[in-house]
Amino acid sequence: MDPYTIFGDIVAGRAPASKVYEDDDVCAFMDIRPITPGHLLVVPKIPARSLAELDPAVGGKLFAVGQRLAAALRASEVGCDGVNFFLADGVVAGQEVFHVHLHVIPRTVDDGFRLQFRVRFPPRADLDYLAGSIRGALDRAD
Amino acid sequence: MDPYTIFGDIVAGRAPASKVYEDDDVCAFMDIRPITPGHLLVVPKIPARSLAELDPAVGGKLFAVGQRLAAALRASEVGCDGVNFFLADGVVAGQEVFHVHLHVIPRTVDDGFRLQFRVRFPPRADLDYLAGSIRGALDRAD
Repeated sequence: MDPYTIFGDIVAGRAPASKVYEDDDVCAFMDIRPITPGHLLVVPKIPARSLAELDPAVGGKLFAVGQRLAAALRASEVGCDGVNFFLADGVVAGQEVFHVHLHVIPRTVDDGFRLQFRVRFPPRADLDYLAGSIRGALDRAD
Repeated sequence: MDPYTIFGDIVAGRAPASKVYEDDDVCAFMDIRPITPGHLLVVPKIPARSLAELDPAVGGKLFAVGQRLAAALRASEVGCDGVNFFLADGVVAGQEVFHVHLHVIPRTVDDGFRLQFRVRFPPRADLDYLAGSIRGALDRAD
């Protein structure tokens, strides 16, 4: 897969972006196709195409910086009465740029953003069965 | 606000849950109302109602554990060709349980989960203006 993405150019300062935050490991800037006004992306400076490729220490920094940005959004001129974090890992999950990015999305009443899904209430036995399978996969990974 | 939530009881082992992971700081279990089969929640053991109340070190662990769970979901019997992370901070953002929780949602083609929002392409000047306001709020928080 071509390792090039626009986010690499933004991190390097070779592509235009409205940056809001930068440290040694991560960089945050405005999404140019915002779900709501003020929508931010937080990205690792070292490219990682997927969660599997991302150093968990840097992953943790994405979240911690997301917390700071959430507080800043609430304190800024952006309309922000709540915040969503969103991340897509893989084409099927909606990932379009193959450089990990955490969406930080400010929310207001009636902003038009919602999750659409089928409501399910599976029996406990089904939850326990899948939980056992996931625990098995975690054990094999250790 | 009443500090009680069901997640506190789950963490303490006082309420039933299909747990998949636990360490000193965080705990993960099956969502009983899954967006897709295998949908997990990762929560801090020490209650925090909001991102603002959550120790960023623990926030970082939620993400890093989310990465491990994403890999485990892909390696388990759960249908999983992609993963979404989602988090709601505040009623307006869709938060229903006031104990911070990171959703880890396995994805498959045509699983019925999608984001609904209005597509926008604001001019760069608007992005730059809001970015400046967010940077100002970050500076004031430091």
